[in-house]
Amino acid sequence: MSIDIREYLHTKRKIVEKRLNSVFDDMDDPSGILDAMRYSLMAGGKRLRPILCIAAAEAVGGSGNAVMPAACALELIHTYSLVHDDLPAMDNDDLRRGKATNHKVYGEATAILAGDGLLTAAFEIMTHPKDLDDSTDPALWITAVHLIARAAGYAGMISGQVLDIDSEGKDIVLTELERLHRLKTGALIEVSVRCGAILGGGIDNEIKALSEYGKTIGLAFQVYDDILNIEGSEERMGKKTGTDLIRRKATYPLLLGMNKAKQKGENLTANALRILTMFGNKGEPLRALARYVAERTR
Amino acid sequence: MSIDIREYLHTKRKIVEKRLNSVFDDMDDPSGILDAMRYSLMAGGKRLRPILCIAAAEAVGGSGNAVMPAACALELIHTYSLVHDDLPAMDNDDLRRGKATNHKVYGEATAILAGDGLLTAAFEIMTHPKDLDDSTDPALWITAVHLIARAAGYAGMISGQVLDIDSEGKDIVLTELERLHRLKTGALIEVSVRCGAILGGGIDNEIKALSEYGKTIGLAFQVYDDILNIEGSEERMGKKTGTDLIRRKATYPLLLGMNKAKQKGENLTANALRILTMFGNKGEPLRALARYVAERTR
Repeated sequence: MSIDIREYLHTKRKIVEKRLNSVFDDMDDPSGILDAMRYSLMAGGKRLRPILCIAAAEAVGGSGNAVMPAACALELIHTYSLVHDDLPAMDNDDLRRGKATNHKVYGEATAILAGDGLLTAAFEIMTHPKDLDDSTDPALWITAVHLIARAAGYAGMISGQVLDIDSEGKDIVLTELERLHRLKTGALIEVSVRCGAILGGGIDNEIKALSEYGKTIGLAFQVYDDILNIEGSEERMGKKTGTDLIRRKATYPLLLGMNKAKQKGENLTANALRILTMFGNKGEPLRALARYVAERTR
Repeated sequence: MSIDIREYLHTKRKIVEKRLNSVFDDMDDPSGILDAMRYSLMAGGKRLRPILCIAAAEAVGGSGNAVMPAACALELIHTYSLVHDDLPAMDNDDLRRGKATNHKVYGEATAILAGDGLLTAAFEIMTHPKDLDDSTDPALWITAVHLIARAAGYAGMISGQVLDIDSEGKDIVLTELERLHRLKTGALIEVSVRCGAILGGGIDNEIKALSEYGKTIGLAFQVYDDILNIEGSEERMGKKTGTDLIRRKATYPLLLGMNKAKQKGENLTANALRILTMFGNKGEPLRALARYVAERTR
């Protein structure tokens, strides 16, 4: 069995975006801050983390729909991190996915608060009583909240951003670059897969294998992102390319050379595929996702 | 039975601070961001929200120790809100509790990330497996996470801050001021009491009564804070007083006149005390806390 990954991604993206779009529907918005939150949340994006979460749940025989609150929470957290990273005090970016960044549209104060709002709402929607039916074990959701908070927090994504800011203009070595990426993007991608497996009812060795898969493609994703920043077209990427070279930012192609960077990406993809063997046909979407991460460069 | 509120507050504050101090002890800090997080977390403060949470749990016959993860999470969230509110893009304050604000010490980027880290860590510690023993119903913790995220998020505290920023320099009426405060400070104070009651094992009418108590003293707290900003000494308050008048900020004394503002505070305190009647002796700490909120002015 083989699936059409473009169609799979398209279908899942529609489902995720429909849910994201309705996530704040029945809630009060006493100050109008939801406008700014929605602006960045609905500004496009691959929805990679929610789709990984859903695909992992399905790989262990669980329901994609049942894990949707976690899938959406992951996208809210990803979006908040982009809004804060773009701020003048951080990367000071004017454009994101071809659109003006949050603070360019709403001002700096509102952008900070919109990011705060997205982060907080992630934990609100993951624990919403309407979604937690009697058939779901609340202890699994407690675990998922804990793991996601940990991956998004100072032990994960936030420290990655600190290290990224600290490393600007400095020469860093490969092990430091790898550590930075494992924290900044890897931790959230890994936890997306892991929580999908946990909430989907996976058994211990399935959860362990899928966490390893998540860690592996999280790194592959960054390696290919660095390659694309040099070789990709702006049109296809929806953002400026070549920016890493201009900023003299440490990247895999810069530290390893382009050929070795590509070899590293291929090795990681092969490892990810090997891990999925035990899931048979049910692992096909995750297999296709691993290939998709690599194929973006072609 | 009557308790010595100063001694009670002192004892509980010590317990809370000991726990706050150790909350990050066994955790990785890959980037050094914990320094900035701890700086603001351990910069003093009344620890009112954790103490309310503990006192509410004890009022319904529960254990203060068992609700400690929620109590600490509330203080982390309160601290994050202060760090972000002080930022140059927001209130641009240099001093907080007599010490340099986070961004004055660590810079703006780190202060934003330290705030993000405190907020995220709140949900991490509330769901830490080591604290959730078998005797605790995980469904209650799911509920507590949900209510706290809701109170801290765009439907509560964040919208309060948006409205506060929007109202600067504008004439607002009493109903608008009340709405602002219910969101900005009231929501988190109310949820502190409510979650203490829920996690302490309170029954429905106890939870309802204590939520009402929390809402009432949350408002009283703000009324007296406004009064103190005019009548309090800087030495006692640990921050500049008279600032609201200089900023021409809408306050209860300004909108109602000082006498009526004091009357309002007294009425709210009386209401809070009346609600506690049903808790008998077990309500004594909460009773003393309601009086303490008012007595700060004497």
